Amino acid sequence: MQSIYWKKMNTFGDKWTFTSFGESHGAAIGGVLDGVPAGLSIDFAMIREELERRAGKGMVGASQRAQHEPDEVEWLSGVMDGVTLGTPIAFIIRNKDARPEDYEIFKHMYRVGHADRVYEQKYGIRDWRGGGRASARETAARVVAGCIAKQELAQKGIRIAATLVQVGAETDPAKFADTIAAYQKDGDSIGGIIECRIQGLKAGTGEPIFDKLQAHLAYAVMSINACKGFEYGTGFGGVTQPGSAINHISGGIAGGIADGSEIIFRCVFKPTPTTPKAGIKGRHDACVATRAVPVVEAMTALALVQVL
Amino acid sequence: MQSIYWKKMNTFGDKWTFTSFGESHGAAIGGVLDGVPAGLSIDFAMIREELERRAGKGMVGASQRAQHEPDEVEWLSGVMDGVTLGTPIAFIIRNKDARPEDYEIFKHMYRVGHADRVYEQKYGIRDWRGGGRASARETAARVVAGCIAKQELAQKGIRIAATLVQVGAETDPAKFADTIAAYQKDGDSIGGIIECRIQGLKAGTGEPIFDKLQAHLAYAVMSINACKGFEYGTGFGGVTQPGSAINHISGGIAGGIADGSEIIFRCVFKPTPTTPKAGIKGRHDACVATRAVPVVEAMTALALVQVL
Amino acid sequence: MQSIYWKKMNTFGDKWTFTSFGESHGAAIGGVLDGVPAGLSIDFAMIREELERRAGKGMVGASQRAQHEPDEVEWLSGVMDGVTLGTPIAFIIRNKDARPEDYEIFKHMYRVGHADRVYEQKYGIRDWRGGGRASARETAARVVAGCIAKQELAQKGIRIAATLVQVGAETDPAKFADTIAAYQKDGDSIGGIIECRIQGLKAGTGEPIFDKLQAHLAYAVMSINACKGFEYGTGFGGVTQPGSAINHISGGIAGGIADGSEIIFRCVFKPTPTTPKAGIKGRHDACVATRAVPVVEAMTALALVQVL
Amino acid sequence: MQSIYWKKMNTFGDKWTFTSFGESHGAAIGGVLDGVPAGLSIDFAMIREELERRAGKGMVGASQRAQHEPDEVEWLSGVMDGVTLGTPIAFIIRNKDARPEDYEIFKHMYRVGHADRVYEQKYGIRDWRGGGRASARETAARVVAGCIAKQELAQKGIRIAATLVQVGAETDPAKFADTIAAYQKDGDSIGGIIECRIQGLKAGTGEPIFDKLQAHLAYAVMSINACKGFEYGTGFGGVTQPGSAINHISGGIAGGIADGSEIIFRCVFKPTPTTPKAGIKGRHDACVATRAVPVVEAMTALALVQVL
Repeated sequence: MQSIYWKKMNTFGDKWTFTSFGESHGAAIGGVLDGVPAGLSIDFAMIREELERRAGKGMVGASQRAQHEPDEVEWLSGVMDGVTLGTPIAFIIRNKDARPEDYEIFKHMYRVGHADRVYEQKYGIRDWRGGGRASARETAARVVAGCIAKQELAQKGIRIAATLVQVGAETDPAKFADTIAAYQKDGDSIGGIIECRIQGLKAGTGEPIFDKLQAHLAYAVMSINACKGFEYGTGFGGVTQPGSAINHISGGIAGGIADGSEIIFRCVFKPTPTTPKAGIKGRHDACVATRAVPVVEAMTALALVQVL
Repeated sequence: MQSIYWKKMNTFGDKWTFTSFGESHGAAIGGVLDGVPAGLSIDFAMIREELERRAGKGMVGASQRAQHEPDEVEWLSGVMDGVTLGTPIAFIIRNKDARPEDYEIFKHMYRVGHADRVYEQKYGIRDWRGGGRASARETAARVVAGCIAKQELAQKGIRIAATLVQVGAETDPAKFADTIAAYQKDGDSIGGIIECRIQGLKAGTGEPIFDKLQAHLAYAVMSINACKGFEYGTGFGGVTQPGSAINHISGGIAGGIADGSEIIFRCVFKPTPTTPKAGIKGRHDACVATRAVPVVEAMTALALVQVL
Repeated sequence: MQSIYWKKMNTFGDKWTFTSFGESHGAAIGGVLDGVPAGLSIDFAMIREELERRAGKGMVGASQRAQHEPDEVEWLSGVMDGVTLGTPIAFIIRNKDARPEDYEIFKHMYRVGHADRVYEQKYGIRDWRGGGRASARETAARVVAGCIAKQELAQKGIRIAATLVQVGAETDPAKFADTIAAYQKDGDSIGGIIECRIQGLKAGTGEPIFDKLQAHLAYAVMSINACKGFEYGTGFGGVTQPGSAINHISGGIAGGIADGSEIIFRCVFKPTPTTPKAGIKGRHDACVATRAVPVVEAMTALALVQVL
Repeated sequence: MQSIYWKKMNTFGDKWTFTSFGESHGAAIGGVLDGVPAGLSIDFAMIREELERRAGKGMVGASQRAQHEPDEVEWLSGVMDGVTLGTPIAFIIRNKDARPEDYEIFKHMYRVGHADRVYEQKYGIRDWRGGGRASARETAARVVAGCIAKQELAQKGIRIAATLVQVGAETDPAKFADTIAAYQKDGDSIGGIIECRIQGLKAGTGEPIFDKLQAHLAYAVMSINACKGFEYGTGFGGVTQPGSAINHISGGIAGGIADGSEIIFRCVFKPTPTTPKAGIKGRHDACVATRAVPVVEAMTALALVQVL
């Protein structure tokens, strides 16, 4: 069994450090968010709404299981009377449907197309337990932490808004639901592109050499399951345009540093691999990109609080 | 004057830490590379060749100044008789053409389209001195450190090879020189796409949650000046393909972890903003993507030594 | 209200990262221990015993409150069937006696001689909420994490044993209980010296420049409440001896690196400030050094797993 | 040959990061200090004086070699017209007496009582090359960086002053020179205690849990060669005093946080092991503690700039 040193496996950030924990079939998932200033009023209703967005409540093509998870957040520390104390904020979301007898099954199977398969194939060992962390359920904890970061950012006049701008070849939002429904009916899945806009970031935010603002954002967003690409400003499409035509487009960042204008980036999510068409029965997401929207916002918020 | 805490401004990595220093018009640029194991034989000829690649020696459209910089590396510590000692490797490249009288000029002008302009416009202060770090000359230090990382990777059977795969709309490498020459003749500039392939990376390399291998690579590559996007595997183009058609394409990474197959990623570089057509006289790069190829390899190597 | 950036306030270590959370009067205290290898069998009975040692069960002069806290550990993640999964280990200890109505009291008082007083006096603000983290109750989480570290160390043949070697002027362990009882009877408190021995640490462990092994140990131990000093090898007492007489005594470390022999260090704990004699009623520890012994071991273990 | 992961071997601090490099017999020693704000006027004369203090110029019992090293600092980056640029400050001190032919000798011998001996005895390998880093010459780079930190601290009204308060059993400073001369004449060496006082540190500086101010200071000071102990406030001597007698003595820190009063700590330095009496010919320090005074100040300054 190979020994790998995974230094920051479950922690994101060094100013606001967010540590995520929990297996999808263990007692609970949760997180500890440290570095949040004292005195921030937590908007719990907004956190519930964002968790429902992530769960795909009422969305076409969203996994039935995700939609029915209650995702109730239990606050353990760092918050009193709805206000942050400046101490680490620990929270958990219990796995309501966790059943010990289910564990046995995972010893003798693995979910095709998921990370556990890679472990199995490449290591020659049965790493059936890792599946619990690779589960997209872990992103619920990111959304909770990201909401707190967004609330802090909002106080400083910074607003993050991500939207789905493409599903398959379709770019008309009015037709996204139909497009997804068609793939779902066919037992298939489809990818999507999310655009994220950041407004109100003060000019001068970011770092000029290795920790350019775009590098930080790319790192945060590329850590989301199924994300296959990141671009900002002129992006990949700009390659066909000469400098004389496009150099006025900064995407909000120059030399790694915010220039005070709106920052726009895009990221692409691949289709989920576990579909009926691939021979895998069960409830699946026909387009994970729809549910990734609040996760993109959460990771963007967690990235931005590091560099303020 | 706003105070910003830029924690890792000039250091990359936490296992092999590379600290870059030096202003383009100061005494020298250079770096300290710490964490390199003892006993690695340094291939100095390879480092010279890579620095010449970065300088664009003999390339169509490359800046005349870059081509004529000698870039002689002076080794200060960490290497004896051509072998690493396990101690920090410090090196400098003297700025041969640094002239103190030139500094005066920068007090009263700034280079259009560069980071110093942003500072000027947004802070209301004259940060003419920062230009020295924002200069692309800083990438010479990255190439030196990246070469040492590549040499360590090569010993473990890992090979990194980046190539220019698109210039403007042109995808036939045979025609890149002519395409660039045409833009140069027109006093304009053009972007390009670089593809990078990593072979020999052991399955299991990478981290499952925040520090996914793709997140690390995106962070490293997006820190290069003029890079506007990063994608791997099916990338942005995969958005139009259903899951049933493309889920066999992993791009070499599953769940953030190398699956042992070749890793392929692409990144796009925008055209340089300082061109005659934009009204800026002087020697410019007609296509910076050509000279970015060894820098992409260097940053990829520096990213990979962190996760081995 | 002044804003202070406390980067690593609640996290210890960068290989095994231990994040502590929880207010003494909130829902729970707890921790997340990340970086623990998969496959370690957790000895829960040992953890219970160590928590009882920390609580001072049956010890002369130990706080009545600490002795009667149940300290039941609830494991949330990272452990299955008593074995570590390689994923972050999250655990909580519920504050059984937490009563919301108690919070109101702290708004209008502060405990003399504690950190909350310093906040009050110096900032001019009422930071009554910080008391919850400054409480020695937080060390229970350290002991849990430290036990897991000790179990890993034991597997590698490394043994840590701390003992109380001095109470006031008394150096005969047989007389410690009587000495403490005398101070307690007098409504006073007394300090103590703890000696800690590390056996089995492989020669070569440690770092030669800034992260010398002794620097790591000092940092870990000096982070314990009431610890006022750290010494190893010849320590302070060696100052009167010439080099010719004592240079054979290494204390197990040379040049920052373990030499393979037993490492011996000592640390001193001051008397608790809240005593009847100081006019403060309530249950107090007559000699906190007695209860610090397992905490010294825990922090030593957490320091050592970083450098293995 | 055993592989040890020494993460922060040559870097100190995470806000002001100081990276030290250079072998005592290589081309140069030096450092890179990153994180220094722009606009600080460097007092080069003070740096020269501190380097002379470290070299023991004119001190009784100081090594002849150290006294005659010129220690000329060459500034490579980050400073222009004597003012910091906000970019990394790189500097080198050339090893004027480095002679390539000397290296050969070290392949077949090692200096008794030094870290290279430990490597040799314990690893079974010839790590003759490491000696260059273990040399006390490396502290010259610490002094340069520490001076810049002290200058920044001075601007904020913070003053650090270390003094030798004990040599052997002698506590009268007027008699230190004679005491040292006596040991030197006897071909022996003796230890000493340094007391360091910090004035002007704002109440509230420091971190309450793991990164208590005293833990930071202990870590910084214990990283100096030959330092065997650290204590503050009542220290080890306070163990014999009851709480009722000494709890008004804070040593300037409460709960890990500065209380605004003067901070006083003490550290002890053992005698140098290489003495004529031990059978080792050559120029030695009869009391290294004398030359450690400016190094204690430098490390204290580098520790404090991290937590401001």
